[in-house]
Amino acid sequence: MTVNLERGESAATVAVLGAGSWGTTFAKIVADAAAASDVDRQILLWGRRPEVVEQINTLHRNRQYLKDIALPESIRASTDVAEVLGDAELIILAVPAQTLRLQLREWKHLVRPGAFVVSLMKGLELHTDSRMSEVICEELGIPASQVAVVSGPNLAMEIAREEPTASVVACPDKEAAAWIARSCTAPYFRPYTTTDVTGVEIGGIVKNIIALAVGICEGKQMGDNTKASVITRGLAETSRLSLALGGDARTMAGLAGLGDLVATCSSPLSRNHTAGRLLGKGLTLDEVTAEMNQTAEGIKSSQAVHELAGKLGVEMPITAAVVAVLDGKLSVDQLGPLLLSRDLKSEGDY
Amino acid sequence: MTVNLERGESAATVAVLGAGSWGTTFAKIVADAAAASDVDRQILLWGRRPEVVEQINTLHRNRQYLKDIALPESIRASTDVAEVLGDAELIILAVPAQTLRLQLREWKHLVRPGAFVVSLMKGLELHTDSRMSEVICEELGIPASQVAVVSGPNLAMEIAREEPTASVVACPDKEAAAWIARSCTAPYFRPYTTTDVTGVEIGGIVKNIIALAVGICEGKQMGDNTKASVITRGLAETSRLSLALGGDARTMAGLAGLGDLVATCSSPLSRNHTAGRLLGKGLTLDEVTAEMNQTAEGIKSSQAVHELAGKLGVEMPITAAVVAVLDGKLSVDQLGPLLLSRDLKSEGDY
Repeated sequence: MTVNLERGESAATVAVLGAGSWGTTFAKIVADAAAASDVDRQILLWGRRPEVVEQINTLHRNRQYLKDIALPESIRASTDVAEVLGDAELIILAVPAQTLRLQLREWKHLVRPGAFVVSLMKGLELHTDSRMSEVICEELGIPASQVAVVSGPNLAMEIAREEPTASVVACPDKEAAAWIARSCTAPYFRPYTTTDVTGVEIGGIVKNIIALAVGICEGKQMGDNTKASVITRGLAETSRLSLALGGDARTMAGLAGLGDLVATCSSPLSRNHTAGRLLGKGLTLDEVTAEMNQTAEGIKSSQAVHELAGKLGVEMPITAAVVAVLDGKLSVDQLGPLLLSRDLKSEGDY
Repeated sequence: MTVNLERGESAATVAVLGAGSWGTTFAKIVADAAAASDVDRQILLWGRRPEVVEQINTLHRNRQYLKDIALPESIRASTDVAEVLGDAELIILAVPAQTLRLQLREWKHLVRPGAFVVSLMKGLELHTDSRMSEVICEELGIPASQVAVVSGPNLAMEIAREEPTASVVACPDKEAAAWIARSCTAPYFRPYTTTDVTGVEIGGIVKNIIALAVGICEGKQMGDNTKASVITRGLAETSRLSLALGGDARTMAGLAGLGDLVATCSSPLSRNHTAGRLLGKGLTLDEVTAEMNQTAEGIKSSQAVHELAGKLGVEMPITAAVVAVLDGKLSVDQLGPLLLSRDLKSEGDY
């Protein structure tokens, strides 16, 4: 199969894998995008749990993740991954970052040749230090030009409520990036394009760790001056890591860097931000995980990012401090003053 | 007089002009800095109103601006500007931006030759489009190497409460910047130094306008995705203006750019942010000014920034939109969608 990337064309068949808050919301975006541009599009959403799939197909709701948001009736959900992947020219992946590789091994033979694959995930694989786009290329055996990443200041619940949101589609192939962007341009969702996949992914991964640090400061009742300093210095260490991996410095000043970081650190809806606040209030890591009923991605990725920074010789003091807190080697009381200490010389001239 | 800028030295006599929240807080910083480093320092604070001066000298409070914060007893306040300026080697200016020039004309003959002058003000002079450091050089007839600017994520009330805060001292003379930084390094206040006065001032000026835009979006109940996008694109237009004036791009990614912008847009304490929220809720400009009992600096500077951008050919769509709202040419309902429209191509590649 060859997908038609010509100007004006967009995806006719879309598969979304993962019916959590972001996967379900993205299925709504591509459905609303088709409706707004009068395109005939088939949208299939894969979920693991039969009751969630049933609720989406009959009530057009995903109550656990999106409360009372009405989903477009054009979205059809299924637990059968073969049915969902069967004919898709555009495949959107929204599954847990740390299990992606194993899932792709199961799904590989079902992927239509020539299909484009988009990652919505923000994590770095433990032990391999691989970014999600790298895992996708490796496991599906497809070139980087068929793999894209969507990231930005994109709190899923706000998008589901159709609040105006901008985002970035990153793919080394400019035409593919534009085709994917057209496929998901809804009245409330405006994607821009870039070729800097590395920068966009690193921005999305590290912001979860910085959001943990900001959350800890808030849990300790530190003010907006401190929070703004941690965000500023956090973005500086994210930029250093991205540059060391070949990313473009301008990406970090854009929607997928600064934009995503500020949205996450402003929002009470962010899991990483919330996990940080609970740690800052003195809960243990186990208590936080129990209270939240899940592990925030930043907790899982921080060790991998710390290791990667070490290998590359990149200074990431905030990430190092968060890892030390999660390992129980640093108390949250020690974290705040450390984050503002003079040893954090992250600002070039300063 | 020659001030001794040698390593380890700091200011022995400090005059702070302006007893509002930031001026009074800065007097507290230099007093606490002296106490922490066991330096003998005279700190005189000029205020216009006798009752404020009296309260500072007797009760060690400035209740109107800093509620119940206890001020160091080493601060002496006076309404007599000749007494305050008399012997000062370091002069801190914290008066309204739009009246600075006229005040300096009155004060010029009282300034000790060789004294260093620091601006805490964040405004662009109407009609001349001059930055505060430029007004100071012109009116006092002193070289730029004797004029510095302090800026950063510095909400005065949080600093007065001694919450840990970082800041930036900018002066073309590196030794002078370091001497000023030593003079105001308190246990809770950590200044870094830079030579990029232009970048630091432009960051401080434009952030008030972006804070108005973010406030309007909040007043219209738009979410954190939108707010983060406006902050991101706002910083991009600030960078463009700064670069056109000879500033360093890295400054905008630091504490005086991103840091100050994020602190202002996060805080309910910011006047500009608050004024924006009230405009977003539908109040007129006159009603906002009446309700706040003062005009937010961003309202005064926005026209000057808009003019300056026009002269330099710099695209500043958010500033232009804020000016149009303030002029009554654009409704706040039209502002939100405009801020996220595709016409705002501020992100290089995107």
